[in-house]
Amino acid sequence: MFDYRLEATNGAARAGTFSTPHGDVPTPTFMPVGTQGTVKGLIPEEVEALGARMVLANTYHLYLRPGHELVRELGGLHAFMRWDGPILTDSGGYQVFSLAGIRQVRDDGVVFKSHLDGSSHTFTPESVIDVERALGADVIMAFDECPPGGADRAHALEANERTLRWLRRCRDRFQALETEGGHPAQALLPVLQGNVFDDLRRDHARAVGDMDDWPGYGIGGLSVGEAKDDMWRILELLDGELPSDRPRYLMGVGYPDDLLEAIARGCDLFDCVAPTRNARHGTAWTSEEGQVNLKVARFRDDTRPIDPGCDCHACARYDRAYIRHLVVAGEWLAVRLVSIHNLRFLVRLAEEARRRIGEGTFERWRTDWLERYRSAG
Amino acid sequence: MFDYRLEATNGAARAGTFSTPHGDVPTPTFMPVGTQGTVKGLIPEEVEALGARMVLANTYHLYLRPGHELVRELGGLHAFMRWDGPILTDSGGYQVFSLAGIRQVRDDGVVFKSHLDGSSHTFTPESVIDVERALGADVIMAFDECPPGGADRAHALEANERTLRWLRRCRDRFQALETEGGHPAQALLPVLQGNVFDDLRRDHARAVGDMDDWPGYGIGGLSVGEAKDDMWRILELLDGELPSDRPRYLMGVGYPDDLLEAIARGCDLFDCVAPTRNARHGTAWTSEEGQVNLKVARFRDDTRPIDPGCDCHACARYDRAYIRHLVVAGEWLAVRLVSIHNLRFLVRLAEEARRRIGEGTFERWRTDWLERYRSAG
Repeated sequence: MFDYRLEATNGAARAGTFSTPHGDVPTPTFMPVGTQGTVKGLIPEEVEALGARMVLANTYHLYLRPGHELVRELGGLHAFMRWDGPILTDSGGYQVFSLAGIRQVRDDGVVFKSHLDGSSHTFTPESVIDVERALGADVIMAFDECPPGGADRAHALEANERTLRWLRRCRDRFQALETEGGHPAQALLPVLQGNVFDDLRRDHARAVGDMDDWPGYGIGGLSVGEAKDDMWRILELLDGELPSDRPRYLMGVGYPDDLLEAIARGCDLFDCVAPTRNARHGTAWTSEEGQVNLKVARFRDDTRPIDPGCDCHACARYDRAYIRHLVVAGEWLAVRLVSIHNLRFLVRLAEEARRRIGEGTFERWRTDWLERYRSAG
Repeated sequence: MFDYRLEATNGAARAGTFSTPHGDVPTPTFMPVGTQGTVKGLIPEEVEALGARMVLANTYHLYLRPGHELVRELGGLHAFMRWDGPILTDSGGYQVFSLAGIRQVRDDGVVFKSHLDGSSHTFTPESVIDVERALGADVIMAFDECPPGGADRAHALEANERTLRWLRRCRDRFQALETEGGHPAQALLPVLQGNVFDDLRRDHARAVGDMDDWPGYGIGGLSVGEAKDDMWRILELLDGELPSDRPRYLMGVGYPDDLLEAIARGCDLFDCVAPTRNARHGTAWTSEEGQVNLKVARFRDDTRPIDPGCDCHACARYDRAYIRHLVVAGEWLAVRLVSIHNLRFLVRLAEEARRRIGEGTFERWRTDWLERYRSAG
């Protein structure tokens, strides 16, 4: 059911295919985020048209609203959100440790307050697996503790140990439900922690690898405020630790340049809210001009598309002058069009990386692309 | 270029075709409102898919932002908003008399303050025609004074007289620019005022009709807070006054039941922000259950579409349970889907009315439809 086929490498960069019950995912790839069961403002047909093959949804949000039991009753997340392709759910670990008001972290789980209404809830490794089983995504992530970016070594070590204990419990619950039957086919992925400490990262990756033969790996605790060089060093370290025949999902990344840097260091799957969040602020990515704010006055009579090299619907049909007007006027169509463009920009960047890796021209292309993109800003 | 062909009648109800430089408009029809050059949140392909043939844009808003000269420079409103079908612009009269901070109504025009930044502007009959010429819609409305719903007879009479003087100046300016050349083909329509006073309505309609051979008539000053019975009586009165071979545009109407009542009294064209405004509040129209609020708890696991009899994209693809979740979660996709449904509901209602008028079954169908719709609420 779940299988990763490595098809080409170029340095540490990898091109492959991740097979899931809802279809194959050519990697590297960017997964649009559908936090509440919808990629903000877009219909599934549009998400598909921009080349996305797999989307992400957030367990924490869907657990609180509309509730995982209701989603199960309505046929699971695929039926609920009308997306027939592969779906991945995170574990809610990141959210309960950041968004929610935490009341207590205990070894059996986390007691937290909903950011919606302050009501009290408990997530345990077992309950999170139950929720993710009910939601029914193809790939589900284990419940982990993600310490903040600036956490010290002692905190990172403690989080590693707790994440490892929780992982075993997630795995046991997952297997018990598997034996019980009646669930869709799902793959459980562990989340690797260890912050920016090389030895903790190495120890954690090895301990996780020793526990089971996982169908893939989530790389957590990065892009949480640490220096970029720390992120790249940790990814290089993990590239040496992780099996080459399993996909690696770098959680919460990223911006276009980060995506290319991480692909160069062996990562395969990515997600980030930046494309749609930036769109809400009228900010778009372009290959020749870097990141641009569409509000600025110089675009008022600019009849070029956002990015002349882009093949998305927004660039095929509209010019900057019109989109700038929509942004300035606060029209929702602006958010929709810029979201489509930004998402397509990342999806296409990963597609191009994949092609270059296959041809063996990735390294050179990446260097040129990054230089052009960064010097433009 | 502009022509109205009356094809069938059923009582006072009329079926016809209004020809414009950007295509034929079968009437009666509902025109979606694209205030700032976009039907809120929708792309032109979606507006077309819901059967709309003609859209409206607001002169006041586009004059303030992005500015009519910029729209002209960018190729006019059709090119600007990527809508190839017919467009109608109102005159801004309604807005400067309601939205904006009025500083002074003088006989040569109105000095008002922008609702955006408080800056001072002047609209005169001549300047409004210049703005509408620059925007380039197919049908443009004359600058009128629309007194509030509760205005007394003296105020209504004064507004009638001013509207008549301004109409002559609009017409003269329109013709002068026509002679000058270089403008797209446009039709100028007068706006009939007179509030709920029968004699003022009759006098104004006759005076306007005596002034010129207009290609159509706007009926203003209704649906501004007066009793429904007053509106129906005025429409019946005007039906007897207006030539049968010219289209009649009832400005700012309406809700589904109002649309049918007005069609029954000889009106052909309609516009209203209710479909998209209601969508922003999660309110949808249905033929069997009347107006429903999609937020209510009973829809949480309702797997029927919003309106089982509807052929819109939202009803074809989504159920109430999912749309309710989107509404409750504040997701913009809810607004988009319910907007599509509500707009299609009105467009389809007018299509059905047209078909029934052709068959001679309109009267009976209208009575049944209204009874069912009103008893459901």
